[in-house]
Amino acid sequence: MLSIRPASVEDVGLLRDLIRELAEFEKELDSVEITEQQLKEDGFGKDPKYRALIAEWDGRPVGYAFFFGFYSTWMGRHMFLEDLYVKPQYRAKGIGRQLMARVAQIARAEKCRAMRWEVLDWNQRAIDVYKGIGAEFLDDWRLMMLRGEPLKKLAEQGR
Amino acid sequence: MLSIRPASVEDVGLLRDLIRELAEFEKELDSVEITEQQLKEDGFGKDPKYRALIAEWDGRPVGYAFFFGFYSTWMGRHMFLEDLYVKPQYRAKGIGRQLMARVAQIARAEKCRAMRWEVLDWNQRAIDVYKGIGAEFLDDWRLMMLRGEPLKKLAEQGR
Repeated sequence: MLSIRPASVEDVGLLRDLIRELAEFEKELDSVEITEQQLKEDGFGKDPKYRALIAEWDGRPVGYAFFFGFYSTWMGRHMFLEDLYVKPQYRAKGIGRQLMARVAQIARAEKCRAMRWEVLDWNQRAIDVYKGIGAEFLDDWRLMMLRGEPLKKLAEQGR
Repeated sequence: MLSIRPASVEDVGLLRDLIRELAEFEKELDSVEITEQQLKEDGFGKDPKYRALIAEWDGRPVGYAFFFGFYSTWMGRHMFLEDLYVKPQYRAKGIGRQLMARVAQIARAEKCRAMRWEVLDWNQRAIDVYKGIGAEFLDDWRLMMLRGEPLKKLAEQGR
């Protein structure tokens, strides 16, 4: 049977393993640099940067949702769902849907006007599920990132 | 001359006006529902959801940057730049660059590994500037949003 619980500091090793499993599915395992120590400091200190839910099936961890607050200058509070993952052999049991529903409950309880997330453009199965629950694409926006040396260089230009 | 300062609670009216100006430039003024009261509660209460910088030219407010923490399960802490705006008649003076540089400084001081933002696909001028500073596109990801009735319906499915 399914049960869902908030992740605690004892789960950072499990979280890191699940994050790596998801990244492997996304063909991006090489991009994962996060450590248990980072997850511990950033999620369970006095100013937590994220929250996570763990899904268990008959007591075994089989998936997770990873989320945090986001803010829209058009609408106000949003909740950003960074990761949603269910192990392949536990799919089609409604576990992903239930994880999303719990995040939606938390979002609404915290007066968030919307939930946001990103999906890989080749992940048609996920896209179909998301469309099925009424999610909208924001396809006129492109995502950008600045990191490493260019970020350092930009910061150094600040007077 | 340019000066940049953190926004305070006295700036929520100004912020709302600048947010509306930016949305008008983006041809999305109808999407702006945010109120001064929301900006006040969410930015200047005991658990602020965002921060903002105000750019002034000879003492007159001419632009702003609006940002908050974001978290990547691959890399850790990020800083999300929700809005960057300079009034049209004050462009080409390096004000936008300076606002971005200040956000980059704050991001690095707070151990963020990257800055992220979104740009409208037709805003070629901005895209060129961002490419010029070394930003990368994350074009294999699509943005999704769930709000209104579908969000409520999903939340109600949570057991």
